[in-house]
Amino acid sequence: MHTIVVLGTGNVALHLCNAFLAVDTLKLVQVYGRNKETLQRFNAFANTTSNPDEIEEADIYLIAVNDDAISQVSKLLITKKGIVVHTSGAIAMHVIQSEKRGVFYPLQTFTKSKEVDFSTIPICIEAESPQLLETLKILAKAISEKVHEINSEQRKKLHLAAVFVNNFTNYLYGVGETICLEEGLPFDLLKPLILETAEKVQTLSPKEAQTGPAKRHDEKSMESHLKLLNKEHIALYKLLSEAIKQAYEKEL
Amino acid sequence: MHTIVVLGTGNVALHLCNAFLAVDTLKLVQVYGRNKETLQRFNAFANTTSNPDEIEEADIYLIAVNDDAISQVSKLLITKKGIVVHTSGAIAMHVIQSEKRGVFYPLQTFTKSKEVDFSTIPICIEAESPQLLETLKILAKAISEKVHEINSEQRKKLHLAAVFVNNFTNYLYGVGETICLEEGLPFDLLKPLILETAEKVQTLSPKEAQTGPAKRHDEKSMESHLKLLNKEHIALYKLLSEAIKQAYEKEL
Repeated sequence: MHTIVVLGTGNVALHLCNAFLAVDTLKLVQVYGRNKETLQRFNAFANTTSNPDEIEEADIYLIAVNDDAISQVSKLLITKKGIVVHTSGAIAMHVIQSEKRGVFYPLQTFTKSKEVDFSTIPICIEAESPQLLETLKILAKAISEKVHEINSEQRKKLHLAAVFVNNFTNYLYGVGETICLEEGLPFDLLKPLILETAEKVQTLSPKEAQTGPAKRHDEKSMESHLKLLNKEHIALYKLLSEAIKQAYEKEL
Repeated sequence: MHTIVVLGTGNVALHLCNAFLAVDTLKLVQVYGRNKETLQRFNAFANTTSNPDEIEEADIYLIAVNDDAISQVSKLLITKKGIVVHTSGAIAMHVIQSEKRGVFYPLQTFTKSKEVDFSTIPICIEAESPQLLETLKILAKAISEKVHEINSEQRKKLHLAAVFVNNFTNYLYGVGETICLEEGLPFDLLKPLILETAEKVQTLSPKEAQTGPAKRHDEKSMESHLKLLNKEHIALYKLLSEAIKQAYEKEL
C-alpha cells in the first residue's frame, strides 16, 4: 500500500486523483491547493487543505501545479520523508527541492469535463535513484499499461513533440473551422476527417499517411488554394506546403 | 433501383464500390479503369473493362479519378444518358462534359487497407438541376447519414479547410515523430495524445480546446523550445506560435 498526497487542483490533479482512487493498493490521503474554490471539487474523495502546515505524511507527494510554481511548492515539503515528484513535461527533475525527487509525467491532454482512460496513457517516469524509480514504476503501473523511463533531456524533447501534435494541430483545426464558418458551412463537416487523420497514424507512419497537393507537387492546386485564403493563413499555407514538398523531395 | 458505373480504380473508387454493394436499392453494374492492374481488385464485385467502347448504360456514372483526368474521362460518356458526377473536392462541376452533371464528394481520407464506415462520412452533393440533385440525394442517403448540398465555390473552400486539418496536421504528426526518433523515443508515446486531440474537437470548438505555451504567452517555454529544434522546424514553430498568440490576443 502506498499513500499519496496530491498538490494542485487543476485538470491533471483531478484526473490523477480519479485514477488513484480506483486502485486498491493506493491510498489518496490528501489534496493540497492554495485555490480554495478549485480545491472544493476534491472534497468528495480526500481530505483537503490550503494550509501548508497541515500537509500530511505520505509515501509519495505528487506536485501537479503550473510549471513556474513547481520549485516553490516543493519547498513546502522539505521536512517530509516521502518521494516528491512533479508531473510536468517541460521542467527538469532537479528543480524539486528534495533529494528524494522524481518525475511522473502523463503524456496526455486533460479536459475537465471529459473522462480519460488512464490505462492507455503513457506515463514517463524519472527518479534520483534506482530505488525511487522502482517505487514510481509501481505507482505508474498501477494506473497505466504504458510506463516509460525517460530522462529530463528526453522528456523536454517529448514535450516539444507534443506541442506539435497537440497545440499546433489544434490550431490547424481552428483554421479549418474558420474557413468553414466564413462559407456558412458547419465545422461538423470536417470532424470525421479530423478523427480519421488521427486514427490513420495509430497504425501507419505519418510519412506513409501523407497525402495532398504539396506531396504531389501539384502547383496548380496550391496556387488556387492561395487565392482563396485570408492574408493571415497564406504564410502558414506556404510554409507547411514547402516543408512537405521538401520532405518528399529528399525521398526522390 | 439505380444502376451505377464507377470510373476509376483508386481508393475512393474502391471504398465507394464497397459501400454501394451493401445497398439493396443500388446496382453496381461496371467498373472502368485504364490501369488493368489496379482494375483487377474490382473483378470480385462487378464487371470490369478498360475499353471505353464497352462502358455500359447506367443511371449514374461516378468518376473517381485524379483531378486532372476528370474532364477527359467525362468525354468518354458523351453519348450516355445517365448522370455524370465526379468525386473531387477541388474541381468545379462544369469541367464535366455533360449537361446531366453533378458532384458527389465524400469528405474523408481513404486508405487502401483500412475499412471505413460510410454512414458517418459527409457527402457533399451538387447538380446541374433540382431533378438531378434529387437523384444524387437518394444515392448519397443510401450510403451516408450526412448529406450536404454544397456549391462549387463552397466545396473549394471546404477542400482547402480539409488540407489544413488533414494534410498539414499529418505533417505535424511527422514532425513529432522525427523529434521522438532523434531522441531514441518511440512515436507510440505520442499516439494517445494525437487521438485525444482529435477527439476533443468532436465536442469542443478548437478555440476552446487550445492549450500550450503560445496561448499562455509563455515566452520562457517558447524560447527553450526554439533552442531544442532543428533549423527546418524553427520557422514552423515560430509562425504557428505567433498565429496562436495573435488569435488569443484578439480575445483579450
